[in-house]
Amino acid sequence: MIKLSKLSKEAIHAIIEDSLAFASGKRLRSKEPIFVANLFFENSTRTVVSFEMAERKLGLEVVPFSVQGSSLNKGESLRDTVKTLESLGLDLLVIRHPDDNYFHDLQDLDLSIVNAGDGTGHHPSQGLLDLVTIKQEFGSFEGLTVGIVGDVKHSRVANSDADALRRLGAKVHFSGPEDWFDQGAMMNGTYRNFDHLIPEVDVLILLRIQHERHSSKHPMASQEYLTKYGLTRSRMEMMKSGAIIMHPGPVNRGVEIESDLVECDKSRIFKQIENGVYTRMAILKHELEGRGFEFVPWE
Amino acid sequence: MIKLSKLSKEAIHAIIEDSLAFASGKRLRSKEPIFVANLFFENSTRTVVSFEMAERKLGLEVVPFSVQGSSLNKGESLRDTVKTLESLGLDLLVIRHPDDNYFHDLQDLDLSIVNAGDGTGHHPSQGLLDLVTIKQEFGSFEGLTVGIVGDVKHSRVANSDADALRRLGAKVHFSGPEDWFDQGAMMNGTYRNFDHLIPEVDVLILLRIQHERHSSKHPMASQEYLTKYGLTRSRMEMMKSGAIIMHPGPVNRGVEIESDLVECDKSRIFKQIENGVYTRMAILKHELEGRGFEFVPWE
Amino acid sequence: MIKLSKLSKEAIHAIIEDSLAFASGKRLRSKEPIFVANLFFENSTRTVVSFEMAERKLGLEVVPFSVQGSSLNKGESLRDTVKTLESLGLDLLVIRHPDDNYFHDLQDLDLSIVNAGDGTGHHPSQGLLDLVTIKQEFGSFEGLTVGIVGDVKHSRVANSDADALRRLGAKVHFSGPEDWFDQGAMMNGTYRNFDHLIPEVDVLILLRIQHERHSSKHPMASQEYLTKYGLTRSRMEMMKSGAIIMHPGPVNRGVEIESDLVECDKSRIFKQIENGVYTRMAILKHELEGRGFEFVPWE
Repeated sequence: MIKLSKLSKEAIHAIIEDSLAFASGKRLRSKEPIFVANLFFENSTRTVVSFEMAERKLGLEVVPFSVQGSSLNKGESLRDTVKTLESLGLDLLVIRHPDDNYFHDLQDLDLSIVNAGDGTGHHPSQGLLDLVTIKQEFGSFEGLTVGIVGDVKHSRVANSDADALRRLGAKVHFSGPEDWFDQGAMMNGTYRNFDHLIPEVDVLILLRIQHERHSSKHPMASQEYLTKYGLTRSRMEMMKSGAIIMHPGPVNRGVEIESDLVECDKSRIFKQIENGVYTRMAILKHELEGRGFEFVPWE
Repeated sequence: MIKLSKLSKEAIHAIIEDSLAFASGKRLRSKEPIFVANLFFENSTRTVVSFEMAERKLGLEVVPFSVQGSSLNKGESLRDTVKTLESLGLDLLVIRHPDDNYFHDLQDLDLSIVNAGDGTGHHPSQGLLDLVTIKQEFGSFEGLTVGIVGDVKHSRVANSDADALRRLGAKVHFSGPEDWFDQGAMMNGTYRNFDHLIPEVDVLILLRIQHERHSSKHPMASQEYLTKYGLTRSRMEMMKSGAIIMHPGPVNRGVEIESDLVECDKSRIFKQIENGVYTRMAILKHELEGRGFEFVPWE
Repeated sequence: MIKLSKLSKEAIHAIIEDSLAFASGKRLRSKEPIFVANLFFENSTRTVVSFEMAERKLGLEVVPFSVQGSSLNKGESLRDTVKTLESLGLDLLVIRHPDDNYFHDLQDLDLSIVNAGDGTGHHPSQGLLDLVTIKQEFGSFEGLTVGIVGDVKHSRVANSDADALRRLGAKVHFSGPEDWFDQGAMMNGTYRNFDHLIPEVDVLILLRIQHERHSSKHPMASQEYLTKYGLTRSRMEMMKSGAIIMHPGPVNRGVEIESDLVECDKSRIFKQIENGVYTRMAILKHELEGRGFEFVPWE
């Protein structure tokens, strides 16, 4: 699974249903030994541990792979490394890589690639876990209003979330610093004034400021960001009663959101993390069933 | 389990009994899948591998966690990282951290923390494995004389060992460089001249010099330390016939102890390492049973 | 298993037969829990992942060991680290280390050492997987002509392959830059002009240029190496119809071999990687059976 945009509405719905079944306690395991590895060329606690948990809950064999200790440091190309792992008997790789579309010359190989983030491009498992969390809350996407706020341009989540939400029947708006808005995003939703948008949304998705991706040309003090584009208590109180707050994490406390709102009633931030494991189980099952592997109930 | 001093005498005895049962070949495994991770913010071969062995021998699922690859490098707090791991479904974390009392704001979370060492504070699994090794040797703590020698001030072991030994009925004395003696230690035992102490002890615990924790104000040549406070052959020959030598490791050979005494008849240094695995199995069982998990015989 | 040269012809044949059985789908697992660790003091993707796959396919418990996080950084000797791992209950260690004969003072310890490469010395699992690949192709070693080309002096493979091939009945020749030829190699085969050798060989083993082991005194442009000693298309077309190409990897594309020949019909380069897993399963089985462990069919 490379991009959320490549998945049909039917496939998205099937993965959401499986995720919700796993969230309700359904337990499946692979019938045969299946060998997987996680190749993370960028740091990430939650994503890599989330995939590890999902893999183990499905009974997969997780083979450790250290990017630091790899032959990539001897100048081997990513394709040759992946082809080597294919020959070694790996059935599926989860890859996060700083290059956009790193996967373009890997797709003919005889093993599954699950994209766990490429550059500022795609992050389908994050997109899907956002959808799962929204479906779990509201039961449907039809008629929902979703606001996506912040660093739209550098976010791997903003555009793929917006595209999928729109396809599933929700209405999407963007906000945040205007020069962080992306022309591409305009296909999926309009740019809105933050304070006008707040009372309308059912779902407010706050994006993480990617400090590591901004040049020094855009320094903005944390306090200034919070005041202009962050979720303060007064803004939270303007939200509808059933509305929820989401954030892909890790949260910059006091920047995108006031620190003590992270665990407030409206927040689904830790619920998203929990759902991420179930969503990744569903994604792995989807990919591996597509390669002919079978899953059976535990015990 | 955070501190040895928080454990009742009864709990200590129960853990020692379980440890000795595991040492005698008893095999238990968790009934349900239990997910654990080891977060080591300081290097350690023996402690981390010892926990890994213990976890696997109990049939736990050990999820890899790389401190280098974690979001802590993106500025996330330890509490947020631990809370994320809780949401991801981890049931228990083993943590070693350079900060004293790093766990003070983690204890309300809904997962178990096993402290594998905090700053110069506590190291309960080391303390317990020392107790297990002494119990295994002597059958009881009543009436034993224990000498703890060396870097008392910077040792995570000295004070917690001394407190527990005293509570269990042993008499404790300290020795080593006088300015490395700690006021806090005086509650649990007296400072003694090393050569006077040697013939009295049943158990001699040599502490590792924490080179990494001393400022350059206390340089002492290895040879000088060995001569004044180390276990030389002539000192070893002054020990009682049934007395034993212990050291938490890794040994600085030729500093705390003459190199060829490390494997002598009186030494239990490698026995301690072996017992460490059984002790950590007992600790993990104790913690997890406290959370409602059950263990059953293998097969 | 430390050196290929220490294995009898009978042992080599037994390991080859087991490897080919695993390649044909035979599945065995350890009857009792067996604990192993991989200690890699040099980077390597394919070797470490290959051992990991082999260990998991045999049902072994693989305990992670991070060289970076080890007490070796606190000045502990390799022997003390290995002795600690023995006390912790490890049954077998796979070790790669930059020092020639690092294992000389480890062999009296009560656990198995499988050498995964020492300095420029030995690499028995690579040697054996080369033999397995040749046996799989030709059914026998008798009468085969093998050419080993390239950096003979710095190769861990060249001499041990040559010695074993000669013992098994093959004829060995060497080629490549003459000052990279090794006096020691002369016992096992003669130095030949590359272009004269090419049409005679059944097996052409290209060695990796160990850029990291050459001083700056021997700079040779990649293009110059390819022209003089690399496998170009025109040289490939001079090879016998049934002849095969091998390379221990990772390949320097366009240096030892023209890039688009890496996956040509004659190439067994990715087949070697695949066979490596089966060969390492056979090696581990051989070592562990030698220590009294038993293997039984899965399920």
